[in-house]
Amino acid sequence: MNLEELKTPCALVHLDGVKANAVRMAERMTGLGVRLRPLVKTDKCVEAARLQVAGHFGGITVSTMAEANFFALAGFKDITYAVPIAATRIPDTVELTRGLDSFNLLLDHEQTFHELESCAGAEQIRFSVFLKVDCGYHRAGVDPAREESAQLAAKLAGSPHINFRGLLTHAGHAYASRNADEIQEVAGQERDVMAGFANRLRGEGLEVPEVSVGSTPTMSLAENLEGVTEARPGNYIFYDRFQTSVGSCRLSDVAFTVLATVVGRYPEQNRLVIAAGGLALSKDPGPTHLDKNCGFGALFSADGSREYPELQLTELSQEHGKVVGKRSLDFESFPVGSRLRVVPNHSCLAAALFDRYHVVREGKVVDEWRPVRGW
Amino acid sequence: MNLEELKTPCALVHLDGVKANAVRMAERMTGLGVRLRPLVKTDKCVEAARLQVAGHFGGITVSTMAEANFFALAGFKDITYAVPIAATRIPDTVELTRGLDSFNLLLDHEQTFHELESCAGAEQIRFSVFLKVDCGYHRAGVDPAREESAQLAAKLAGSPHINFRGLLTHAGHAYASRNADEIQEVAGQERDVMAGFANRLRGEGLEVPEVSVGSTPTMSLAENLEGVTEARPGNYIFYDRFQTSVGSCRLSDVAFTVLATVVGRYPEQNRLVIAAGGLALSKDPGPTHLDKNCGFGALFSADGSREYPELQLTELSQEHGKVVGKRSLDFESFPVGSRLRVVPNHSCLAAALFDRYHVVREGKVVDEWRPVRGW
Repeated sequence: MNLEELKTPCALVHLDGVKANAVRMAERMTGLGVRLRPLVKTDKCVEAARLQVAGHFGGITVSTMAEANFFALAGFKDITYAVPIAATRIPDTVELTRGLDSFNLLLDHEQTFHELESCAGAEQIRFSVFLKVDCGYHRAGVDPAREESAQLAAKLAGSPHINFRGLLTHAGHAYASRNADEIQEVAGQERDVMAGFANRLRGEGLEVPEVSVGSTPTMSLAENLEGVTEARPGNYIFYDRFQTSVGSCRLSDVAFTVLATVVGRYPEQNRLVIAAGGLALSKDPGPTHLDKNCGFGALFSADGSREYPELQLTELSQEHGKVVGKRSLDFESFPVGSRLRVVPNHSCLAAALFDRYHVVREGKVVDEWRPVRGW
Repeated sequence: MNLEELKTPCALVHLDGVKANAVRMAERMTGLGVRLRPLVKTDKCVEAARLQVAGHFGGITVSTMAEANFFALAGFKDITYAVPIAATRIPDTVELTRGLDSFNLLLDHEQTFHELESCAGAEQIRFSVFLKVDCGYHRAGVDPAREESAQLAAKLAGSPHINFRGLLTHAGHAYASRNADEIQEVAGQERDVMAGFANRLRGEGLEVPEVSVGSTPTMSLAENLEGVTEARPGNYIFYDRFQTSVGSCRLSDVAFTVLATVVGRYPEQNRLVIAAGGLALSKDPGPTHLDKNCGFGALFSADGSREYPELQLTELSQEHGKVVGKRSLDFESFPVGSRLRVVPNHSCLAAALFDRYHVVREGKVVDEWRPVRGW
């Protein structure tokens, strides 16, 4: 099938780009001496996840229990569910804990520890658990500087009901970086905080098998991961406009785009309308810390060969996108019915809006991948 | 089923609220002498749409061709597809044009007119078409002040292949209002521009059967719709935090919420984390023109009985929401595992993220509704 035959808006996954991104990250992590446990919440599909684990041990990271079940069914045997487990979802984890080689949970609160112990006792199983650590993002995780954090680690390590896997963090503050140097600084902090905390715990006699880190910006640029055992980047499989802007990748590395059709043109207002809005691109505001008026995506010709820096996607409503000319537009190039390719601000959020991806290679649709949805 | 048994994040539709919102708008429109053709892109489900059309003629408005096909299959016979039709989608409209009592398209460009004429000739059908008019929002639509706009209306009215239905607009700029007075001002402008343009065309001998307007803010507050024949509000069926903020409705009218679980609490940072992020709430920024720091939703107790104005949903990542205390929080009230109800900024975008809605009444889940997705 040719691209021209696709109905829009639709999601395009660029096969060569996905493969290159997968290989590059896998080789980077091997080179830095850590194993790769990719977070598959960006692509949410089996085909991409299989490319991501190639050359490594096969473990993955997921962000929902729906993903955990979906990938378990597809044959993945070692899965980390990387959101602190809520008491109400603990029963859902029992079957995966029994059935997989390793189904790993995380927690950062003593109450959850007691709930897991109690369920493990009743079910006669052992939960595999990471202690979630806050390395500076200040979203979830224990503060490694607090005495209570070390105590919680000791409780996990000492529990007969728990297989303590180690420490895990996500340096989400890397997304506030403005360039590659700043990302590398965050990467250094992520590593130092985690390796330091692990060593302190080891000094107190605890076994800390894993030190798991990972964000796409830091893992794309880190030059030293000493003290780290495992990395969990996710977005890198597609990358996006945000990652390009902060310096994680080049624009040519982006492997996910949305194809949209021009449905209105208003030369007297120097603008177009495309039939793709917040339900096709998400309302992720993008790298506003670098450019307050960055808009909602970068626009390219339908075949992807030509960027239109003169077009700015300034507003999204549910099914419309407003495209304004930064300079006087050549409207002959954008007839009603023509198509544009959008590199979205945030591919994780945009991809999750589609029930299927059209996999493209050299201008042809060569496959269709189905992501998992829900929780 | 009780609310406590639901897995989170999940979408709650409040049945009494939906019914009250449906009846209130239907009666308002009857009182103002116009027929209601609700836009069903907010709820995207048959059950809600049936409540919306009660007391009126049964026509609806949709925002995607997937919705058009879904609602046609469910028995709706008069459907307006309210995005300018793209040439590439014209073939998809043929069957609906043949099968429904009326399947209405819109256009604002002469090129589309010629494409429709040509397809109608080849298929031996007549397309039912509205001219989309820009009444001040400056997204899509012809400028009624331009001579070319009247000429395009005349072409539509004169074509043997087209059943010219009239004029249609959406006053999306009502969303920039700061209060009810400003909304009423936009409502007056919407009506005046449209009635004025219709009368001008009639003065030139054209028949203009319909003058179709509608946005939830303007239709919730308009006090006079003289010259208008039909209204197409959509969001009102659920309302949301944005509508509450600009004065379209009261907070108690909101009939769509997202139930989320507290998975982290960090008293030393005076904050919580809920396991609901941009994929459950959308990243709609909300009424930032009224409050730059409005955050991503209003937070309530799990049963909806109590608002927590001291909680602010400051950041969303894919599956996490960061909840910060505006004042020192009572952490006993928010244990890990407890639940919060979120009134999202924009219910249209949030609802579309779910595969099903749990319909609740008096604390019980009484039904499950399935929205249509995709394009």
